[in-house]
Amino acid sequence: MKLLEDKIKKEGKVLEGGILKVDGFLNHRLDVALIRELGSDIGREFRESGASLILTVESSGIAIAFAAGESLGLPVLVAKKHKSHNISDGVYTAPVFSFTHKTENNVVVSREYLGAGDRVLIVDDFLASGNAAMGLLSIIEQAGATAVGFVAAIEKEEQGGRALIEGKGIKVYSLARIKEMRAGEIKFN
Amino acid sequence: MKLLEDKIKKEGKVLEGGILKVDGFLNHRLDVALIRELGSDIGREFRESGASLILTVESSGIAIAFAAGESLGLPVLVAKKHKSHNISDGVYTAPVFSFTHKTENNVVVSREYLGAGDRVLIVDDFLASGNAAMGLLSIIEQAGATAVGFVAAIEKEEQGGRALIEGKGIKVYSLARIKEMRAGEIKFN
Repeated sequence: MKLLEDKIKKEGKVLEGGILKVDGFLNHRLDVALIRELGSDIGREFRESGASLILTVESSGIAIAFAAGESLGLPVLVAKKHKSHNISDGVYTAPVFSFTHKTENNVVVSREYLGAGDRVLIVDDFLASGNAAMGLLSIIEQAGATAVGFVAAIEKEEQGGRALIEGKGIKVYSLARIKEMRAGEIKFN
Repeated sequence: MKLLEDKIKKEGKVLEGGILKVDGFLNHRLDVALIRELGSDIGREFRESGASLILTVESSGIAIAFAAGESLGLPVLVAKKHKSHNISDGVYTAPVFSFTHKTENNVVVSREYLGAGDRVLIVDDFLASGNAAMGLLSIIEQAGATAVGFVAAIEKEEQGGRALIEGKGIKVYSLARIKEMRAGEIKFN
């Protein structure tokens, strides 16, 4: 998606350790008009998917997932992050390692809001190593629900997450697909 | 706002310790159509405020703030929560005690995205004791910016947060104002 690629080229900053800083429009300060366009694009791509629910994880996925929910007329389920392993019976949970923060969290979803009949579109800000995606897919499996796709605003292709998700037969769609990046240069695919 | 009050009456659950559970439409599962209406209502109320920026705090305020940003055509700045006091020079920070989780976090905003020229509308999911509001107002003061209002989707009047904010001369607007609540009964003002 050219709009997002141009924004990343113009304002994104490549930090040490393979981190792409997009704080100015996607994570910390939200460019609402841009994110709305991302939502519309996701809506066009998944209009015919039969999705019944969008699943994201707090907190940087929420705005993009919300915009996609507006476009598709679907509710958004926000998986919560908890450090604790001491979690009640009423939830699905899966461990997720954060590449950016170098910490492990559990992602948690209430059983009340996800069931076997659901067709789930996952929407997140980044796809890198695929850790968050695997955690969310585990939760969907635990619920006996069906994943109809995984959407990332930005994919960092070198980190290989796509293969993990596609290996489960799930469609991956990224709005900006970064082939390689280093300070001062970002190449898209 | 009748739409929200009706939803709270129908689906909200009053838990021990004065906690109102609205997980099914506002916090965990997001009712996108409802939240969009909240955003439109906030837009109507603050159309003439001259706001240049919406400020919220992760993570349950994000969707409501985003919907308000869509309605007002404004960017949204998401204050981050950190446990650590070890924070870089490039940020404003303030301590906030969470009523729900009984923990203290720092809320953090990058100096890059908030400055003396900004007119800031704060949007959050709850107004209770006003702790989060005071932290965000401290950040606005540190930046030399101006707060043009504080919006909560749900206000729990008994906990007194409104007086703290109004005491600073700042307009408070809540979309559902709960006078009192106990299991099975919620009264609005």
